[in-house]
Amino acid sequence: MEFNATEVLGLVAAVCTTFGFVPQMYKTWKTKDVSSLSLPMYLVLCMGTILWLVYGLLINSTAVIIANIVALLFTFSLVVAIFKYRK
Amino acid sequence: MEFNATEVLGLVAAVCTTFGFVPQMYKTWKTKDVSSLSLPMYLVLCMGTILWLVYGLLINSTAVIIANIVALLFTFSLVVAIFKYRK
Repeated sequence: MEFNATEVLGLVAAVCTTFGFVPQMYKTWKTKDVSSLSLPMYLVLCMGTILWLVYGLLINSTAVIIANIVALLFTFSLVVAIFKYRK
Repeated sequence: MEFNATEVLGLVAAVCTTFGFVPQMYKTWKTKDVSSLSLPMYLVLCMGTILWLVYGLLINSTAVIIANIVALLFTFSLVVAIFKYRK
C-alpha cells in the first residue's frame, strides 16, 4: 500500500463505506425497530463482503481484508438484529 | 482488468455490495416506510461512494467508476426516500 494523496482518498472512502453502517446499528440497537429494514439487502451485503474478504485473501491485500472483516461484522450484526427484533 | 477466476470473484463481490441496495429500494418504494432507516448511514455511504468515484477517476479504474456511479444512484435514492417519507 502506497500512502500518496490518491491512496489516502481511497482509505477515507473505505472508512465511509465501512463505518457508514454504524449509525444504523446504533439506531437499531436503541429503538429495536427493524420494520422498514430490508433483510435481503443485508443478506446480499453480507455475501458481498464475504466474497470481498476471499478476494482480499487471494490478492493478499491487507486493506481489502481488514475493511471487509469490519464490514462483515457490521452487516452481519444487522442481519442478527432483523431476525431478533422483527415481528 | 484481467478476467481470471480471482477477478471474476471480485466482480461478483462488487455486484453484491452494489446491487444489495435494490431490495431496500424496492421495500421502501412499496411501503413508503422509512421509520427504522438511518439517514446518517445513507449520507455517509453516499459520501463514501462519491469518494470512491473520485478515487476510480484518479486511478483510471473503469470497474471502480461504474460500480460507484451505480452505488451512488442507489444510496442517494434512499436518502431522497428518507427525506420524502419521514414523518
